[in-house]
This record gives sequence, structure tokens and C-alpha cells, in this order.
Amino acid sequence: MKGKHEKYMRLALDMAEKARDKTYPNPMVGAVIVKGGRVVGKGYHKRAGTDHAEVAAIKSAGRKAKGASMYVTLEPCDHYGKTPPCTDAVIKAGIKKVHAAMLDPNPITGGKGVRKLRRSGIAVSVGMCANDARELNRKYIKYITTGLPYVTLKLAQSLDGRIAARDGSSRWITSIEARRYTRRMRPTFDAIMIGSNTAVKDDPFLLDEKRKGYDVSRVVVDSRLRMPLGSNLVRTADRAPLLVATTKLASEGKIRKLQQRRGVDVVTLRSGSSGVSLRALLRELASRGIVNLQVEGGGRLAGSLVDGGLVDEVMMFVAPKLIGGDNLSVKSRGARNIAGAVDLKDVRIERFGRDILVTGRI
Amino acid sequence: MKGKHEKYMRLALDMAEKARDKTYPNPMVGAVIVKGGRVVGKGYHKRAGTDHAEVAAIKSAGRKAKGASMYVTLEPCDHYGKTPPCTDAVIKAGIKKVHAAMLDPNPITGGKGVRKLRRSGIAVSVGMCANDARELNRKYIKYITTGLPYVTLKLAQSLDGRIAARDGSSRWITSIEARRYTRRMRPTFDAIMIGSNTAVKDDPFLLDEKRKGYDVSRVVVDSRLRMPLGSNLVRTADRAPLLVATTKLASEGKIRKLQQRRGVDVVTLRSGSSGVSLRALLRELASRGIVNLQVEGGGRLAGSLVDGGLVDEVMMFVAPKLIGGDNLSVKSRGARNIAGAVDLKDVRIERFGRDILVTGRI
Repeated sequence: MKGKHEKYMRLALDMAEKARDKTYPNPMVGAVIVKGGRVVGKGYHKRAGTDHAEVAAIKSAGRKAKGASMYVTLEPCDHYGKTPPCTDAVIKAGIKKVHAAMLDPNPITGGKGVRKLRRSGIAVSVGMCANDARELNRKYIKYITTGLPYVTLKLAQSLDGRIAARDGSSRWITSIEARRYTRRMRPTFDAIMIGSNTAVKDDPFLLDEKRKGYDVSRVVVDSRLRMPLGSNLVRTADRAPLLVATTKLASEGKIRKLQQRRGVDVVTLRSGSSGVSLRALLRELASRGIVNLQVEGGGRLAGSLVDGGLVDEVMMFVAPKLIGGDNLSVKSRGARNIAGAVDLKDVRIERFGRDILVTGRI
Repeated sequence: MKGKHEKYMRLALDMAEKARDKTYPNPMVGAVIVKGGRVVGKGYHKRAGTDHAEVAAIKSAGRKAKGASMYVTLEPCDHYGKTPPCTDAVIKAGIKKVHAAMLDPNPITGGKGVRKLRRSGIAVSVGMCANDARELNRKYIKYITTGLPYVTLKLAQSLDGRIAARDGSSRWITSIEARRYTRRMRPTFDAIMIGSNTAVKDDPFLLDEKRKGYDVSRVVVDSRLRMPLGSNLVRTADRAPLLVATTKLASEGKIRKLQQRRGVDVVTLRSGSSGVSLRALLRELASRGIVNLQVEGGGRLAGSLVDGGLVDEVMMFVAPKLIGGDNLSVKSRGARNIAGAVDLKDVRIERFGRDILVTGRI
């Protein structure tokens, strides 16, 4: 019997999965409605602003929802956001029983949906396939429980941990296959962040030059506002949002030029140990609905994030070459001893052309 | 017909392979004797001082060698070393035809054996399976043509290219599986070399603590002779040779103590750009018959060897963790630009426990 219930919950998880990384700042949610041993409705949350999974499933079930059981990967919400509360829709549809894989991790609203449903006489179970549900929404859970985005540090380094040669150049350490994969992955993030050194030296676009409509927000950490007005990032501020985080060290005149002439979003934040306070910046980004952030270097920004314990996941492309010199991929203060090193978990190894991709969670 | 000949040569290569990395400073050689379409004798060179492959094959063929063809992976030698010339043995045995995969790469003796055989009326072909024969003896070929050992740089680093934490400790960055593999591989080298930092900080034995008879020579690069008399390397100088390379900066008194009291082989060499001239040291090691050298770090020694173009192969264990800080795996001046980076070829990726082993040739 339990196996059957789980089968429906897994179907709901599969539904949720269809919108992987497309729903932020909302979680991914899937729902399945079962009646008389048959699936009579299913749905998932496609993106923020559209129907929640429960509502989509109820719509797909139509009148068959009455008296049915619902399997949903997250506790139904009981609050007004861009759409009305799902609890109301569930009650109104005449659902008799709700299986939720996990409670809403939002500390403000968690548990409210379940209580409301129970008060309405609906039987509610919580916890079926909970681990999978948590895994699915681990980025959202980090965001909603800490007020910080989920940070993936993506770097392209040589085997000896360098991201540029002595002349500062980094084009190209990795193969075309690795770079293509990076480009394909970018639209799955809400924003791409780089440091000012990278912005100045590489003068990147951080746009999907091949495909329209796949651009995401770009963030530059630039405590002294060194980025030239004529840089590619600034020149394309009309194509995809560009947020530049700076400190009081920045020239007022340059801030104005960037904002007024170029439409760049300049945010002045407090200083941390070396430039912009990264924790303050991440809070700022989270408050703007950025859940899934990719940091593409350089070494100083990467090192500060690692030292600050602000990285959740690492995607390291390793090119089988030795570069040497001073341009380290992770310029950090470093662990005091080996036990204090930052261990990666769930490590995966893939090959891209001649390069190796090592991914792991912290 | 050609396929048949190649089959015999491949058998000879397989014979040679049996003594992989055990014959230095001699090459690996295998020989097969064929008569009337049947293999009547085969042999290989087991280690320096024992029968060469041709002689071993002739002995195994006995009187059947007369009128037969020989397939040998390297041109038969025509000089007295620890054993008499193979050419004489081949002629005396009445071999009618010799197929040699490649000429002797020794610039002094190469071609002499073939000329001698031909002058004696034996038909000689050269070049069958030449690539495989060269690949088999690539370490020996490097040694005999350059007067330098074949250098394998073996390092154990974190994903971000560090070999120690801030406190200098490096035990243990890699997993037990990786360390076990390193220990198993050591006896395949003629000597293991480390820098003085590693000798002082890690105080290693560089012995096979688990198995007797598997120890190899140990070499420490120590321009100021910082290594303590009570260090584990010095204390075990009676168990396996210990060579310490130093410069005129070393104290005479300490040299005497190491040599007389401890039986350490201290060699004073000219200084290079940073300490002992590594090229001079490698020449010295080659002159002592060391063909196959493994360098186990630290970062300074590794970097100097890379900068000097003295590394042939890299074995990099990468532990999926971030350590940060200043203890780089390869402390080198570095490539001026990306095109100048040292590329690895024939890259292989293996997993050892949670670690990754990347091997490649330069």
C-alpha cells in the first residue's frame, strides 16, 4: 500500500522537476490527484506568477477532484502572493486527503497550510519522499531559510589551480566543449556574478550571444567602481539587467553616469574585510528574488566567498595543463589546518573535451 | 604475411613488458625465435646484469635457433657491458634473419648492431611495431638521448591546487586509497625526490613501511642543508640510499656529520636560480644510473622543475576540497600567456576513493 502512495508522490516529484530552476523565487512543486486508484489530474508550477501546482492539478482533474486524494511535493500555501491560497482551492475542489512530501520551509508560513486543511476536515499526511522533495528544492530552501541565494561557484582553472597566465589572459584555458556547457547552463541561474578584476581584464558580455531570450541578470562586485563606461557589460545594460555593487569609495560622478547614461543599477553597500561586504550583497540579491546565483570568478571574489562560508556548490572545470604564476583560482586566506579544509560532497566527475568537470556541494 | 610477422613482434613486446620498469638503467627488451612457422624460443631482459633478451631467447630455443628468425624489440647490442655482445650470440646461434622493432637509441651505439649482423650475412629489418617499441621504452629513450632521468611529478593537492594548510600540515589531503596507490607505485621508480621544505615539515620516511625489499633511493634537494640529523630520512640511511643535494651554502660540519656519522651521500652542486641547479642534479642522478625518477614535491621544487622544462609526466591526485592559502602545489614563475602553458597529453582520469588521479605527459 505504501509503495502505491509513493508511486504517486514520485509522479508528483517528476512533474515538479519539469520546471527545474525556472520557478524562482518560488519553489518547484508538482501535484497529482488520484481517485479510485487512477490518476485523474496532475500539474506543476511552471514559473512565478502562474498557477501553483495544486491549482493546475485541480484544473486538470475538473470535477473528478471531488473526494479524491492529492499528492503534492510541498505543503499547500495558505497566503496570497501573485495567486490566491492553494488551501482554498483544495478545500473548494472537495479533495478528501492530502499527502504533502514536506512542510513549507518558509519559517513564516510553514505549517499554516496543513493546519488550515485539517481544520477543514481534510486528512493530511506529511513526509512521504521527504528527502527527494528537499533535494529537489535545496536551492529554494537555502534561500527561504537564510535570506541568501544558493551560490554556485563556477571556475575554469588549470590543473595547478590557476585562472590566468602572467599577462592576465585567460582565453581560453578550457576547451570549446567546456565553454559551450557553461553557456548552456547560464540560463538556469537567476544571475551571474563576477569580480571587478574579471570585468576589467576579460571584458565579458555574460550574455547568451547565440540565443535570444536566454540572458540572465549580471552582477559585478566593484568596490571602487573601476569598470569602464565603455565595457561590454555596461554597453549591453539595455539587453539584460546589470547590477554593480560598490562601496563609498566609488566616485559619485561615475555612479551617476552609470545610472543615468547607461541604465546600470548601482548599489552602494557597506565594506567588508576586502571591498564590498559579500554577505550584504547576497542579502540584497535575495531581496530582489535572486535564488540561484552563479559566481564565475575571479580568484579574489571566489576566495572571499569561500572564506566567508558563502558558497554552496562548486563547479570546477579543470584543464589538463600547468600555468603557474600568481593568478590563483581561489585566492583565499585558507584553512588553518587540513581538518579545516572545505570538503566537497556528492562529487561528480565529467569530461568535456579534454577538460574535467568536478562538481560538489559544500 | 605482414600480419604474421607483427604477431611475433607483439609477442616479443609482451615479453619485454614483463620486466616493466625493472631493467633500468637498461632498456626493456623481449625476443622471440621462430622457425618453420613455430615459436621455438623466447626471452626477455629481466634486470641489469642478467642475460639480454636475445641471449635468453637463444638459450630457450637451444639448437632450434639455427636457421631461425628472431623478432626483437630493440636492435641487438654490439658492445661489452655486464654481458657480452648480443650480436655475437645471434651470429653464433646461426640465426638467419633478425627483425628489430627499432634501432638502439643510444647515440654512441645505435646502428652498430645492425651493421655487424648484416656483415655476417644475416638479413635484418628494422621498424616493425616501432611506435609500440618506442612507447615501451620512452623513459629509457629520454635518459639515453638526453643524459637526464625521466621525471614523473607526483603531487597530492586540493581541488584549488594547495598541498598544505596554513599551518604547513598536509596529512592527509588525499584518501587512504590514493596514498596506498602511491606506496604501491614507488618501487617502480629508481628514486624518489623531495624538496627540503617537505623533508623538514613532513619528516617522511619514503620507505615501503609495509613490505621489505621494496625500498628505492631517496633524494632530497636541500641547498642550505636544513635537514635535521635526527630526521626520519637520515635515521634510515642504512635501510635505503639517501642522497642529499646541496650547494656551497651548506655547513661543512653538517656535511661531514651526515656523511660520516649517518652514511648519507651528500653531493655539492652548483647553484641555479633558486638553490641547487636542478639540471645539474638530474645529470648527476642519471650518471648514477637513475632513469626513472619520481618527484613528490613540495610546491617550490615542483615549480622549479616545471619552469625548467624538466618534467616529463604528471601524476596529480586531486582531493575534492578547497584549502586556500599560500601552499601552492606548483610554485612556479608561470606561463607568460595561455599559449605558453604546459599542456598535458594522453590524459587519464581515475578515481581513488573520493580522490581523482589525473595523469598526463608533457
